[in-house]
Amino acid sequence: MEALKGRDFLSVVDLRANELLDLLQLAEQLKQKKVHLRCNKVLGLLFFKASTRTRVSFTVAMYQLGGQVIDLNSNVTQVSRGEPVPDTARVLDRYLDVLAIRTFEQQQLETFASYAKIPIINALTDLEHPCQILADLLTVQECFGSLSGLTLTYLGDGNNVAHSLMLGCALVGMNVRIATPPAYLPQAGVVEQAKAIAGGKSQVLVTDDPAIAVQGSHVIYTDVWASMGQEDSADQRIPIFQPYQVNEELVNQADPEAIVLHCLPAHRDEEITDGVMEGARSKIWEQAENRMHAQKALLVSLLGAD
Amino acid sequence: MEALKGRDFLSVVDLRANELLDLLQLAEQLKQKKVHLRCNKVLGLLFFKASTRTRVSFTVAMYQLGGQVIDLNSNVTQVSRGEPVPDTARVLDRYLDVLAIRTFEQQQLETFASYAKIPIINALTDLEHPCQILADLLTVQECFGSLSGLTLTYLGDGNNVAHSLMLGCALVGMNVRIATPPAYLPQAGVVEQAKAIAGGKSQVLVTDDPAIAVQGSHVIYTDVWASMGQEDSADQRIPIFQPYQVNEELVNQADPEAIVLHCLPAHRDEEITDGVMEGARSKIWEQAENRMHAQKALLVSLLGAD
Amino acid sequence: MEALKGRDFLSVVDLRANELLDLLQLAEQLKQKKVHLRCNKVLGLLFFKASTRTRVSFTVAMYQLGGQVIDLNSNVTQVSRGEPVPDTARVLDRYLDVLAIRTFEQQQLETFASYAKIPIINALTDLEHPCQILADLLTVQECFGSLSGLTLTYLGDGNNVAHSLMLGCALVGMNVRIATPPAYLPQAGVVEQAKAIAGGKSQVLVTDDPAIAVQGSHVIYTDVWASMGQEDSADQRIPIFQPYQVNEELVNQADPEAIVLHCLPAHRDEEITDGVMEGARSKIWEQAENRMHAQKALLVSLLGAD
Repeated sequence: MEALKGRDFLSVVDLRANELLDLLQLAEQLKQKKVHLRCNKVLGLLFFKASTRTRVSFTVAMYQLGGQVIDLNSNVTQVSRGEPVPDTARVLDRYLDVLAIRTFEQQQLETFASYAKIPIINALTDLEHPCQILADLLTVQECFGSLSGLTLTYLGDGNNVAHSLMLGCALVGMNVRIATPPAYLPQAGVVEQAKAIAGGKSQVLVTDDPAIAVQGSHVIYTDVWASMGQEDSADQRIPIFQPYQVNEELVNQADPEAIVLHCLPAHRDEEITDGVMEGARSKIWEQAENRMHAQKALLVSLLGAD
Repeated sequence: MEALKGRDFLSVVDLRANELLDLLQLAEQLKQKKVHLRCNKVLGLLFFKASTRTRVSFTVAMYQLGGQVIDLNSNVTQVSRGEPVPDTARVLDRYLDVLAIRTFEQQQLETFASYAKIPIINALTDLEHPCQILADLLTVQECFGSLSGLTLTYLGDGNNVAHSLMLGCALVGMNVRIATPPAYLPQAGVVEQAKAIAGGKSQVLVTDDPAIAVQGSHVIYTDVWASMGQEDSADQRIPIFQPYQVNEELVNQADPEAIVLHCLPAHRDEEITDGVMEGARSKIWEQAENRMHAQKALLVSLLGAD
Repeated sequence: MEALKGRDFLSVVDLRANELLDLLQLAEQLKQKKVHLRCNKVLGLLFFKASTRTRVSFTVAMYQLGGQVIDLNSNVTQVSRGEPVPDTARVLDRYLDVLAIRTFEQQQLETFASYAKIPIINALTDLEHPCQILADLLTVQECFGSLSGLTLTYLGDGNNVAHSLMLGCALVGMNVRIATPPAYLPQAGVVEQAKAIAGGKSQVLVTDDPAIAVQGSHVIYTDVWASMGQEDSADQRIPIFQPYQVNEELVNQADPEAIVLHCLPAHRDEEITDGVMEGARSKIWEQAENRMHAQKALLVSLLGAD
C-alpha cells in the first residue's frame, strides 16, 4: 500500500477502486496478525463533535500498531477560540504524523489538508463519513466473500453516510439504492458523482419507495433519522421516516442471505426494530469492530511501513 | 493469578479470601520490580463522575505495565447521549481489553459486565469501591505484616467505602467496626453479607458510638462526610458527624501502634484534623500510592500474563 | 545534562547560563536523532487554562522519547473541587515522574514544587512562560548560529512572555528591549532581576517607544495584546497597542537580517500584520516546532538518561 503513503483521505473517492480493494485486503490481514508501525508515530484526533466509536476505534487501532494518540478535543484546545485554521494546521503539522478530524464543513477539512503536509483523515463531516464505509465494505466482503455485483440498500436520511456509501459502492462495483423521504434526498452532486464512477456498470438508484429499494438486496443499511445537531427536529421526523424503518417485514423482501448493518448509535424502534437489530441477520457488532481493523489498514497505508 | 483471568471485579466479594490475599502479595511484588504485560493491551476508563486518584493510579499502573489507556470520560462520548448500555458495552468489548467504570448504580455496572466479555472493573459505585479497599488492605499488610486478627474502625458515613471495607475485612479475617450517625448506617444487606462472610470468626460491628468502635483498634479510617453529589447537604451534616471526627483524642483510644487511613480527598478539621492527617500515624500518602500497586496487580491478574 | 536531574523548572532563572546553553545544544541534537528515555516514564499535564501548542508539544515530545503522558485537565479531576494543593501535589508525586502545570499564580506552582519531589515544570503562569523562551532561544540560535551579543525586541503587553524573554536574554548575554504602552509595563521586580543577571554586559531596556526599541534589532517578537482571561478588555486595548504593531514599516527599521517571532495564537492585523506573519522574515512555524524539541531536551535533562 505504498501508493497511499503521505496522502489525505477526505473522501471515499480519494481512493481508486484497486486501492480501496487493497485496503480492505490489508484490513483482513491485520485482523489476523499483529503489525507494528515504526516506533512513536503520533495520531492526532481533532473532534468538533462527540464521538464514541470513531475515537475509540482510531485510538485502539493506533495503540495496537505501537503508535500513540493525542486527543485534541476542541474544548481543551484553542482551535475553537478563533485561531484561523491555516495557523492551527501548520502548527499541528509540525508535531503530528497524521491527523483525523471530525467537523461540520468539508471545506474546513480541505483547508486543513492544504496547509498540513501530514495525512489528514476525514473522521466525519456533514458531507461524508468515509472511514465508516471502509468498515462497512469490509463487513460485506467478510460475509459474502466479494463485493462486485452485490446490492446494498440504504434507508433513511440522505446524509453523509448515504453519500459515502453511494461513492464507495460505485467504486467497488456494487449496486447501491438509497431510499429517503422526498425532502431528505442525498445531495444531487454526490449522486451524479456516484453515477459517473459506476459508469453504467453498476446501479445507483435514489428513490422514495423503500419496497423497491430493498427488493432482492444483499445489504440493508440504516442510520439514525436525526443525526448529531438535528435532535431538535427528531420528533417531527419520526412520522416522515416511519415507512423507511428497517423491520422484519422490510427485511423479508430482501435477498434470503441479506445482512443488516447500522453505523450506530441506534434508536431502537425508530429506524430499526429491536428484533432486527438483535436478530441473526444483524452484523452490526462485527461492523463496529471492523471500524478498528479498517482504520488500522488506513493508518498503516497513509503512514507507510517504515 | 491465572484464576482471575477474564473475570469481572464488581465487588470485593468477587474474590475469594485466598484470591484476595494472593492479589495483595502480587501487589507487593509489583511494587519491587517492573513487570510487563504483553504489548498493547488497552484499558478503557469510563467515568461518569470526577476522579483524580482513580484515573491517575489506573493510568500510570497500565503505563508501567507497558499497556495503553483510553479515557472515555462521558462528556466526550455518546454514552451519556442516550445510547443503551448494552449497545455501548458490546461495542467497547470489541475494542478494549479491560474496562474500568465509575458510575452511580451498581446495576449499570452489572449490565456492562453481562454484555461485555472483557473484564469489567468497579472504579466506584454508590454501593462499593473495591479497588480502594485493595489499596487499603495492602497498606495495612505492609504496616502490620499480616491482616488476620487485626481490627479496623471506620468512622463517618456508611457509604460505598464503608461497604467495601466491611466485606474486605470480613474476607481476610479482620475485625471491622463501623461507627456512623444513626441516620447514616451502611446498607443492612451489606452488613448481613459481611457477617455471613466473617462466619463468627471475626467481628463485624455497626455502632453509633465512636469510642466503642475505636477502642484498641489497629486501623482508624475515615472518608469525607459528604461524597460527590452530596455537597448540598454538607453543611447540615457537619454537626451530625462531628462526634465521629478522627482527632488526636479519638486516635489515642486506639491501639498504641494504630495507623490512620483516609481515601482522599480530605476536608481537614471536618472528618479528620490536620494534626492527625500530617501526624506520625498517618499512612495516607502510602495508601494513595498503593492504589497504583494494587490496581497493577488486579490488571495483571484479570488480563493474564501472556 | 545530569546537573538538571530531579530539579524543578519554574522560571528561566532556575537555569544557570551554561545550563541553558547546554539545554539548547541538547535540543539541537534531539532534533536530529531519536533518543529514548528508560521505559514507561509518565509526564502529567495539569492545565487550568486552555492550551494547544504546550499540550501537544509536550505530549509528542514525551511520546517520541518513548514515555507516556496523562492529561489531568482540571475539569475532570478533583483539583479544582477544593482539594488543597499540598494534598494534590503529594498524591501526584506518588504516581508521576514529572509534572507540567499551567496556572495563574506563580505561588501555586511553587507550592506544588515544595510538596512534590518529582520535577515540576512551569507550563505558563501569569508571571512567566519559560518553556516558550527555550523554544525562542533555540530558534534564534538556529538562525544566527549563536546568541550572545544579539538584540531581541519584544513589542506589546509586558506579560509573562516578556518577563521570561527578559530573563532568558539576560542569561545568555543577549540585549533585550521591551516596548510597551506605559500602563502595560513588565513587573519592575522582573526588570531589576534581568538587569542584575545582565550585570551591565548586555542591555535590558524598557521603553514606550517602539522605534527606539526596534532600531537595528535581530529578533522582533510580539504576542497577543489580550491574553487568555483578558478578552473582555481586548477592544479597548487595540488603540492603545496600535503603535506597537509588528508591521512592514516597523520591521524595516530592524537589522536587515532580522527575524520575526510570535508565540501564537496570533491575531492578524492586531499585534502583527498578515504580511509580516507570512513573510520571509517570519520564523514563527519553526519556533512553534521548536517548542517540542526544546521541551524534549528539558524532559531528558530533568528525568535523567537512565
